[in-house]
Amino acid sequence: MLLALSAMLVAAKLLGELAERVGQPAVLGELIAGVLLGGSVLGVVPTEGVPGELIHLLAELGLLLLLFEIGLEVDLRGLFRVGPASLAVAVVGVVVPFTLGYLFWAHVVPAPATTVDRGVVAILIGATLTATSVGITARVLSDLGSLNTLEARIIVGAAVIDDVLGLVILTVVSGIATGTGISVSGVVWTLAVAVGFLVAAVLIGRFIMPRLFDLVVRMQVRFVLLVFSVAFALALSALAAAAGSALIIGAFAAGIILSGTNQFDTIEQEVRPVASVFTPIFFVSVGASLNLALLNPATPESRKILALAGGITLLAILGKVVAGWAAPWLNFRRLVVGVGMVPRGEVGLIFADMGRRSGLLTSELFGAVLIMIMATTFVTPPVLKSLIGPARSP
Amino acid sequence: MLLALSAMLVAAKLLGELAERVGQPAVLGELIAGVLLGGSVLGVVPTEGVPGELIHLLAELGLLLLLFEIGLEVDLRGLFRVGPASLAVAVVGVVVPFTLGYLFWAHVVPAPATTVDRGVVAILIGATLTATSVGITARVLSDLGSLNTLEARIIVGAAVIDDVLGLVILTVVSGIATGTGISVSGVVWTLAVAVGFLVAAVLIGRFIMPRLFDLVVRMQVRFVLLVFSVAFALALSALAAAAGSALIIGAFAAGIILSGTNQFDTIEQEVRPVASVFTPIFFVSVGASLNLALLNPATPESRKILALAGGITLLAILGKVVAGWAAPWLNFRRLVVGVGMVPRGEVGLIFADMGRRSGLLTSELFGAVLIMIMATTFVTPPVLKSLIGPARSP
Repeated sequence: MLLALSAMLVAAKLLGELAERVGQPAVLGELIAGVLLGGSVLGVVPTEGVPGELIHLLAELGLLLLLFEIGLEVDLRGLFRVGPASLAVAVVGVVVPFTLGYLFWAHVVPAPATTVDRGVVAILIGATLTATSVGITARVLSDLGSLNTLEARIIVGAAVIDDVLGLVILTVVSGIATGTGISVSGVVWTLAVAVGFLVAAVLIGRFIMPRLFDLVVRMQVRFVLLVFSVAFALALSALAAAAGSALIIGAFAAGIILSGTNQFDTIEQEVRPVASVFTPIFFVSVGASLNLALLNPATPESRKILALAGGITLLAILGKVVAGWAAPWLNFRRLVVGVGMVPRGEVGLIFADMGRRSGLLTSELFGAVLIMIMATTFVTPPVLKSLIGPARSP
Repeated sequence: MLLALSAMLVAAKLLGELAERVGQPAVLGELIAGVLLGGSVLGVVPTEGVPGELIHLLAELGLLLLLFEIGLEVDLRGLFRVGPASLAVAVVGVVVPFTLGYLFWAHVVPAPATTVDRGVVAILIGATLTATSVGITARVLSDLGSLNTLEARIIVGAAVIDDVLGLVILTVVSGIATGTGISVSGVVWTLAVAVGFLVAAVLIGRFIMPRLFDLVVRMQVRFVLLVFSVAFALALSALAAAAGSALIIGAFAAGIILSGTNQFDTIEQEVRPVASVFTPIFFVSVGASLNLALLNPATPESRKILALAGGITLLAILGKVVAGWAAPWLNFRRLVVGVGMVPRGEVGLIFADMGRRSGLLTSELFGAVLIMIMATTFVTPPVLKSLIGPARSP
């Protein structure tokens, strides 16, 4: 267990370094480290029982700390200024891939011989194509030292809005998957709670926390600022989840709130080492969940999966890239924003898993969705890097 | 789960601050925070099921990071110079409490009406009195900024030797508890493995790691030194456990080894914030395991437990304090060293738990042992503080 953790950390840094040496973002190396340590190659990363749960928790902590750190670094005023652009990018980047996925399954693919309603499956496929994984893109932008460019702000804002929209879609999909149906009031309620939580947290937090931290800084125990900040991020994440929103939205909000405190510099400086130990665990875990056997074109069955996967991956990329052109009133590098929105991650996986467990997605279809998520994740870092250019020193 | 973690962190820092304000070490406040959050007051700290396991593992990580940090800070040459004194203190501090505990149960306490062999129970009681919890004392010394005094070196060295001896006793006790008997060769083997691991690790590590880290430092990914150091500490802990030694000995050895690298300053500086987030989880967990109901003298049964507990606590304190006089050839503040060896912790708990599960210890006796462990843990910080004097700035 400890050895597995240790191996994950070392492999992440070694392959991260290798990636940087060949001009790629470090996060790509960490993902590949995960593939190598994962079940389909070395099988070092535990996935089941208590060790699996612990790795999962540490990975989750890593993701929370990453979002918290990004929240700290992002300039709130800048985020507001690009707000409408982010909103447009997010909405187009959800609607287009969803529609493409739906049409692809409902009208393009030959009807399969199952009793499951084709339209329902099509909705599910569409849903898996919607939610951007903010973690990957933000890490790439952070690796390249461009978190405070105009494009990065639009992407991060849109990815957060994406997560909020993802929650709404989740309500719809789980209504379908459990067969309880969909109610308009339920959808509106989810949206209101998610948006309301984010707005209320940031408004109240920006008012209260600077005053509170002016008191905290007068305490003398070691690292009191750091520990309180991490505790605040954890609490706000839990609160977000309890309010029906997503953990990572809470962590991001916590970062934005604390970026308004007077002790912001110290907090950022002390959070960084802590985050740096945990975020690799998240990316290695993501890499480890890739089943390489799915990519083997030797059997006719996997060829079928690969063909399906190729189709939806293409739609997944296309649907997000066009979102870069969604805000014509603002002048920015549209391709950077479009590509930045491409990686899918946790949320897509959640949808796919719900579909598989409810029997709506066959294991082939589930495999194809998994490949799509992996492909979009692995393709983004190098493309984004080549679009943005060499790393600036942070 | 996240909320519990958050509450543990905030409470630890608030009560730690309060403790420092009233002139006590911060760790005392963290322990009290644990009591307040634990099952007998607020019940916030999860103890069962998967959340309980996870908190336990995070606490373990905290302890490992603490021992690693202490290993980094301790001056190896200084440790060697006081080696014989540490050894004498450790041996006396194991033999005397063991003998006192054995005699107390075998000859002083009136024979209870059970079928269990009295001598066997007496050995078990003696064993629970032997092992010093290096965590508490080292934290107090670190809180007071006196980790590099002569006394602190003797204590830390003796506490580590104590842990090695504790493993030997563990072999004996588990032989008794499982009824498989004790073999001399088994005992010698355990001792050889534990000592051999520590010596080999430090010797080989001090040779290899400085060269390896001179290479690591040429890598450019963020926080590569920190992540490799933590990974090394985790790996050596796992290796120590696999070699039949204790996790914390591995972590301590890792610290000592890396204190010989040229990048030692950077490592120490970056490990500190990470450790500072996790060590409070350990101390809060320890505090949370105290069942306040045991201390309630209202019922005759708990009065009996309290009387027993009072007896063995006295022996526990006496047996360790006299160990301060075990090295007459060296001139140091003997009371400081003796008191520093008083806190019992995890290892004693492990013995007691084995006894309880094998039916050798009645629940009353188990309760008394628990109280002894708690009392020695809570009594040491303020006494040590008053002996050492006010904190020097670190």
